[in-house]
Amino acid sequence: MDLDELVRPILDLLRGADERHARIADLAGPDVHEAAFAGLGVPLSLGPGESLDLAALTRAVEATIARSVRTLHPRFFNQNFAGADPIAVIGDFLGAALNTTMATYEAAPVFTLMERAVLARLAALAGWTAHEGLFVPGGSFSNLYALQLARLRVDPEARERGHDGAPLVAFTSTHAHYSLKKAVVLLGLGRRALVEVACDERGRMRPEALAAAVDASLARGERPFFVNATAGTTVLGGFDPLPALADLAERHGLWLHVDGSFGASALFSAAQARRMDGVARADSLAWNLHKMLGVTQQCAAFLVRKTGALRAAFAAGADYLFQPDKPHAEYDSGDLTFQCARRVDALKAWLTWKARGEAGFAARIDHAVALAEHAAARIAGDPRFVLAAPPSWVNVCFWWIPPDLRPLAARTPEVDAALHALAPRIKAAMLRGGAAMLGFQPIDGGPNCFRLLFINPATRREDIDATLDILDACGREALA
Amino acid sequence: MDLDELVRPILDLLRGADERHARIADLAGPDVHEAAFAGLGVPLSLGPGESLDLAALTRAVEATIARSVRTLHPRFFNQNFAGADPIAVIGDFLGAALNTTMATYEAAPVFTLMERAVLARLAALAGWTAHEGLFVPGGSFSNLYALQLARLRVDPEARERGHDGAPLVAFTSTHAHYSLKKAVVLLGLGRRALVEVACDERGRMRPEALAAAVDASLARGERPFFVNATAGTTVLGGFDPLPALADLAERHGLWLHVDGSFGASALFSAAQARRMDGVARADSLAWNLHKMLGVTQQCAAFLVRKTGALRAAFAAGADYLFQPDKPHAEYDSGDLTFQCARRVDALKAWLTWKARGEAGFAARIDHAVALAEHAAARIAGDPRFVLAAPPSWVNVCFWWIPPDLRPLAARTPEVDAALHALAPRIKAAMLRGGAAMLGFQPIDGGPNCFRLLFINPATRREDIDATLDILDACGREALA
Repeated sequence: MDLDELVRPILDLLRGADERHARIADLAGPDVHEAAFAGLGVPLSLGPGESLDLAALTRAVEATIARSVRTLHPRFFNQNFAGADPIAVIGDFLGAALNTTMATYEAAPVFTLMERAVLARLAALAGWTAHEGLFVPGGSFSNLYALQLARLRVDPEARERGHDGAPLVAFTSTHAHYSLKKAVVLLGLGRRALVEVACDERGRMRPEALAAAVDASLARGERPFFVNATAGTTVLGGFDPLPALADLAERHGLWLHVDGSFGASALFSAAQARRMDGVARADSLAWNLHKMLGVTQQCAAFLVRKTGALRAAFAAGADYLFQPDKPHAEYDSGDLTFQCARRVDALKAWLTWKARGEAGFAARIDHAVALAEHAAARIAGDPRFVLAAPPSWVNVCFWWIPPDLRPLAARTPEVDAALHALAPRIKAAMLRGGAAMLGFQPIDGGPNCFRLLFINPATRREDIDATLDILDACGREALA
Repeated sequence: MDLDELVRPILDLLRGADERHARIADLAGPDVHEAAFAGLGVPLSLGPGESLDLAALTRAVEATIARSVRTLHPRFFNQNFAGADPIAVIGDFLGAALNTTMATYEAAPVFTLMERAVLARLAALAGWTAHEGLFVPGGSFSNLYALQLARLRVDPEARERGHDGAPLVAFTSTHAHYSLKKAVVLLGLGRRALVEVACDERGRMRPEALAAAVDASLARGERPFFVNATAGTTVLGGFDPLPALADLAERHGLWLHVDGSFGASALFSAAQARRMDGVARADSLAWNLHKMLGVTQQCAAFLVRKTGALRAAFAAGADYLFQPDKPHAEYDSGDLTFQCARRVDALKAWLTWKARGEAGFAARIDHAVALAEHAAARIAGDPRFVLAAPPSWVNVCFWWIPPDLRPLAARTPEVDAALHALAPRIKAAMLRGGAAMLGFQPIDGGPNCFRLLFINPATRREDIDATLDILDACGREALA
């Protein structure tokens, strides 16, 4: 089969990353997509039928591209990732072609060394002098593993005995990622083991609220063991105050995990690194290179500041895989994690890093933050919109104001209800148009607001203006 | 940057999949690889240095290919995957280029439909009339999630309260995948919550041993809640007797999970499907398309026979992602799993399925089983080797016998010790040569034996003869 034919539309997609006229998404429902694929002779459904020839497969690839969300478009602001680096895409392709597992050095010698190189440099950027770690399938797993290491530190018997119902308590902020809530359930600690601590107006945990929460927990006779500090919250881009949290963690013997899935890449930028001050004192760190750095899904590093805890937590020593009498077995990573086979995610990170250099990563961060600051200033001076929170990191949250309410004098319950109900209709209108894409959500119980996330280095100031105009037009359409 | 230049060596690799003269692997240590990359001007280490130009990046891609394990080689028998289908590799490439997440229909409309199509057909092949499911990052997670669903079925309060130390007990066989051992620890049930049940000489759980183990557990006042049946064990390829296990599960109210990560693909083959008889009665099923079907790492389906349990176990309802007022939100899969962002693994499965058809998948399975049967017969008639177990599925386990012990009359402790110590030395010699690659491991406390795994459709009978000759030569080298 002529592979070039199948690869061509993919390369065309990558080459056309900054084509602003291309449609980002549409609102088509399942039936529309299904009919379209069926019309091309490649129905989405599967069954005992015939295999397809190259021409049909190529049509399927082209339809998949045309009907999928164009996340590399400069006006895609919908998620905490955007603007995939084509080098990372090719790294993923190379990893797939070499199709192996990271579990052993024997099966992945080069990738094992690349993973160690990437992790070593990330740890150095965090100011750590010793570390262990590996790539995991997303920041949710980093957070899960951090909780497991912390649990086993205070209750090593849990490995053999299981959780015994002791009231272990973990702390995170109300703006933290929801994976923490999922993790305490999966770990058998239970949802009640997670206390959510109040934030300031920028989504940053209040240290005095954490101190009070820990004291209250102790007063209830519980055992605080873990605090998650978020570096770059999903919605507001808030960075929890790491030095104050580290002080509290130290005082109470808590494991300090920094969920820097979104924000740890600030460490690449001389101007932004101060946001991460204090990370050198963390016990563990989640750092997703697939968010700010444009490495493709998924590329999530999990780092632990000391060595030994990962193996103690996860080792099972399967004798068909991990044999101490095999050469270089000390490089095997499989017993450091829950997974058996693991994708070679480090490869694409390494290749992208070599291609862009740390200066390139820094420029990407600086560009994104500058655009966010520009957008926030732009929105603050525009009566069509009202900022929902002070800008932070690369996140700008704001409301579109219906014309008859401009300029908005004050939010009332009636105004809030109107704004809240409008958001999904505006979003639907935007998806029908397909020229820009951003998300919406409520913040702290307020009405739905829109959120611009600046990540793609191809995004320019004109894209902000264009997107705001599109949003205004979609607002009017939603009102009509 | 000229992407074609970077893609060329990857396409060359895929086109040369059946080049038998290519080196599969070598024994080089980290220092050798590091020196080689450094010599090309692309050191593996990372730091604040310069970015590389296209020529240097291309050299890095070429060196990565040359120095990695060639898992698509017809004589790569080292893992429970082999012979990646180039269509799946391109599916992975396409997924990376479109770089999105499966969490919401909005972000992944086509992939959501493809995932549903793949899962629906897998469930139909299993004989299920209702199902839910999704792709997860490996069979270990399928097994973990099955345990979590089962735990919440008998103890729904655990979601809020956590595990309370109640003696919940899960059962699996001594030949089952080691992820079960890891899973009970991660879930806070503890290692002691997993009872390993004896197998027959083909690595199949003995139902009478399970019955006795459950009775013993009940007699100890414990609460049996889960049994894992393995369909295709890692080392011997054993299929647990599903009908007998389903009877026992029904009698005792146990959740029956079938870990078909390796073996469920037997359902594609009319000749092999009988191995899976009884799967229609399972509560959940792990099925890795990245093993027997040549879809690239990772492509692991997790299926549950009824609907509702996944959402009940995992939903967190993050309001920035999952909004019931968004169009088509009922198609969102994010609240069905622990992960937030999820790779579009279904795409490559779907594309490969369309390209090969179910007849192609069946042919792949039948070819692999036929080769294994041929190899076992070949080995049984060759005084240089002794089968370590009756052949099953695509696995053939055997010892190389040193010339002065041929024909082997009987295994004695001295013979066993010699065979055990020889295996790693033979393997090292084989890696130095790089013309074939297979693994070794002990079985049930016996001496290390070699294991051929037939998966790659490009493997031919001549490859078996060649590999056995290589093994014999490496044995002599190891003795010398």
